Amino acid sequence: MNKNMEQFLEHNKKIEMLHSASGLLNWDQNVNMPPDGIKSRSDTLSLLHSISYDMFISEKTQKLLDGLENEFDSLSEPEKAMVIEAKRDYLRTKAVPKETFEKMIKLRVMAQQSWQKARQENDFSIFSGDLKEIVSLTKEVGEIYREKIYPELDNGYEALMSNFEPGMKSERLKEIIAELQPFLTDMLSKIKKGNKPDESLLAGKYPKNIQLELSKFALEKFGYNFKAGRMDLSTHPFTTGYAPGDVRITTRVSEDDFSDCFYSSLHEGGHAIYEQGLPEEYIWTPLHSAASFGIHESQSRLWENNVGRSKQFIEFIHPHLKEYFPGKFNCSTEELYRSINTVKPSMIRTEADEVTYNLHIMLRFEIEIALFEGSITVDELPSVWNQLMEKYLGIKPATDSEGVLQDVHWSWGMFGYFPSYMLGNLYAAQIFSAICEETPETYDNIRDGEFGKLKSWLNKNIHSTGKLYTPDVLIRKTTGKELSTKFFMDYIDKKYSGIYEL
Amino acid sequence: MNKNMEQFLEHNKKIEMLHSASGLLNWDQNVNMPPDGIKSRSDTLSLLHSISYDMFISEKTQKLLDGLENEFDSLSEPEKAMVIEAKRDYLRTKAVPKETFEKMIKLRVMAQQSWQKARQENDFSIFSGDLKEIVSLTKEVGEIYREKIYPELDNGYEALMSNFEPGMKSERLKEIIAELQPFLTDMLSKIKKGNKPDESLLAGKYPKNIQLELSKFALEKFGYNFKAGRMDLSTHPFTTGYAPGDVRITTRVSEDDFSDCFYSSLHEGGHAIYEQGLPEEYIWTPLHSAASFGIHESQSRLWENNVGRSKQFIEFIHPHLKEYFPGKFNCSTEELYRSINTVKPSMIRTEADEVTYNLHIMLRFEIEIALFEGSITVDELPSVWNQLMEKYLGIKPATDSEGVLQDVHWSWGMFGYFPSYMLGNLYAAQIFSAICEETPETYDNIRDGEFGKLKSWLNKNIHSTGKLYTPDVLIRKTTGKELSTKFFMDYIDKKYSGIYEL
Repeated sequence: MNKNMEQFLEHNKKIEMLHSASGLLNWDQNVNMPPDGIKSRSDTLSLLHSISYDMFISEKTQKLLDGLENEFDSLSEPEKAMVIEAKRDYLRTKAVPKETFEKMIKLRVMAQQSWQKARQENDFSIFSGDLKEIVSLTKEVGEIYREKIYPELDNGYEALMSNFEPGMKSERLKEIIAELQPFLTDMLSKIKKGNKPDESLLAGKYPKNIQLELSKFALEKFGYNFKAGRMDLSTHPFTTGYAPGDVRITTRVSEDDFSDCFYSSLHEGGHAIYEQGLPEEYIWTPLHSAASFGIHESQSRLWENNVGRSKQFIEFIHPHLKEYFPGKFNCSTEELYRSINTVKPSMIRTEADEVTYNLHIMLRFEIEIALFEGSITVDELPSVWNQLMEKYLGIKPATDSEGVLQDVHWSWGMFGYFPSYMLGNLYAAQIFSAICEETPETYDNIRDGEFGKLKSWLNKNIHSTGKLYTPDVLIRKTTGKELSTKFFMDYIDKKYSGIYEL
Repeated sequence: MNKNMEQFLEHNKKIEMLHSASGLLNWDQNVNMPPDGIKSRSDTLSLLHSISYDMFISEKTQKLLDGLENEFDSLSEPEKAMVIEAKRDYLRTKAVPKETFEKMIKLRVMAQQSWQKARQENDFSIFSGDLKEIVSLTKEVGEIYREKIYPELDNGYEALMSNFEPGMKSERLKEIIAELQPFLTDMLSKIKKGNKPDESLLAGKYPKNIQLELSKFALEKFGYNFKAGRMDLSTHPFTTGYAPGDVRITTRVSEDDFSDCFYSSLHEGGHAIYEQGLPEEYIWTPLHSAASFGIHESQSRLWENNVGRSKQFIEFIHPHLKEYFPGKFNCSTEELYRSINTVKPSMIRTEADEVTYNLHIMLRFEIEIALFEGSITVDELPSVWNQLMEKYLGIKPATDSEGVLQDVHWSWGMFGYFPSYMLGNLYAAQIFSAICEETPETYDNIRDGEFGKLKSWLNKNIHSTGKLYTPDVLIRKTTGKELSTKFFMDYIDKKYSGIYEL
């Protein structure tokens, strides 16, 4: 290996390891930390971030990257991808003045507190002051990104989005929505008149520890490796990949709702199987990472929905459900399948079914665009939110807590992130369709509880390339086609026409 | 505050926080980490150590300390203590060439593996090669310390011991042993002829989760604050103080042995109450630390033995034991007290009773001194160990695994550490005697399950001064006397004469 490359990787390894250590401290904070530990924890996390930040924007990084760019043609393909990725990240980090960066960090801490308080007290005004500052600072950062790193993009919002979904343009997203929204709205109105599943089938009390055991059972079947992972509880389920041999998920569990824990676990399991499958040979390099947030989400949604909510999976899991919860699930498998796939517009995105989920995203995308264009103000958010809920979902939140205050993302300054959730659903449908075309027995395997072939396909085609390809290239390579809404619409149409007898 | 002092504390804070982050990674490794995470974890820990090492031996530290030494007279007492402590630590770290330091780190990793294997396969020769290197390197380091930092000490072994027990001399330890050993040996031979407790009282199966609940109950009574702590399971119980608001203990639990979990928990709880009681105003300074390893051990032994194995505590806990384990403990409180305090020479130090425990330490001290003087070789260790077991305890290990291979310390290169365990017992007895003199109702309070006054005394006199005083000064201040074997011997004599009706 080239001398510069070797030095660069050595340097980069340290930075990645510091991120990884921060990741563990963060996991611990959410899973284990006693309440009085918060002050020291946030101080220590700030320190780790500041050390890795200083290492990364150092002259050393600049010099190594300059050297590598001079020798670019002599590098291998993966090395080229590493340099491109690292350079982009370097420019992005360097572009923002350190004071702005630090201001943002502090603002986030405050905004998360005010957001939580606002949500608890159902009072948007508690949060709006911080949110205004966050919007203004994030706009500033977006503009800096666009000017200095993405001159080809149309606006700062797109530049922010590029952090999450490299190459995605807001025009393309608008096209996607223009195709998807009428379809989903139409679907929803047909479903309202269709043959409703019996939701009450799932009512009852499910012992917490049995729920967790069931989730573990399913995840082991999927191929999540518990020797390189573990499952714990936290308020909001999440996945953290500390290193290839240590990818942890969290879930949550409520006695009243068996499906919350189960499908949260399958969802996080999908993320974790991706992280466990990242290319070991690229460990601690810029390529040991998901292709994008949307692709990451495609993996969680694929296992959660395309697999976990399929009729064949319900056929597989039904007898196990009866075993784990004696006396329960005494319905037909068909009834269970229909009940689990009930469609109903609801207030909360994270609880939405497959049909309404993307409508929640469209609403957020529309709001973010309008905020960044300046056509609405932060103070107008609650009323705009409620209007758009009526427009997209036909329902209106009774409170701001179940409306505009429901997501944590804006308090983090994560604008441009929500579209990744929608893209994840589209990618998942397109990838799953390609898999079924290549391996027509996929659904039969799911019915038999055999997930090995499916996981191997994903490992080989999606996970093992890490961040070697941008999402569009990856999707073209793995499915043979450009990203299209067709696969998702076909999937939804076929599945829900069946369930609701449309 | 003086400018230099402010800068020094800012700098020191970062180093302490990195240690604290390493501490958490280490805790996680022992408690949570999935097996496949080990490689990345040890790489990340090395990195964190190397960053804090480089920060600490930097010119910046040197300059700040030089500045502070120039202004020494103008500093407050705690500031002076901080400078002295930091300077000693700095010299100790700087004195050892980085190559030697790194060689030791690597050697430790290898030696821990070979030690584990040797222990599993009961084959000392698997470990002896690494141990020879460790002994030779540790001797070298000890000599460096003595020459450069402790010119007043007699030899390198003392210099190593100073890391754990500042100011303790090996001559003083030999005096202590000369007083203690004949007393214990005599005690032991009288006990052999005494009225034996009925050990079989404690036989039976104890559900694991109930054992853990009982431990929590007792620790809460003692005043361990679970809002700033937690209890988990690990192979070897330990305490880790991540920060004042986050001091965690681990314990272990076996269904067959109720007392292992219970007394391990009380022991670690004693350490944790110390850590939780360290002076908050000195957080992230060199004073936010225990006075010494021996003083730390005194706190664990005080709660475990002087409190937890006292007749009054057994009177308090007996009804609760019956409640937690229905159908068990149907003996008299006196019988239970005697059974819990059974004295019996045994192979394993960590399972030893109060009478034989220090004999295990004397054996190790004698071996370490001889190794460092060169009067025995590593290859002779197994036979020397067995001879000394006969001499001190009158029993002979059947295997090296339960003999010379039982402790992890030598694979860590921790020579000079064992005496702290013995000193911990002596300090505990002396401190507890002072407490009972000052507060004659202490034992009555224990019987009533009231531990608040006792904890407050320890908080005020021992914990809240952190590392402000050396152990000898602290003991003089808190007990009004120099360290003496008298208190421990009186305690043992009185207690066991009663139990064994001598």
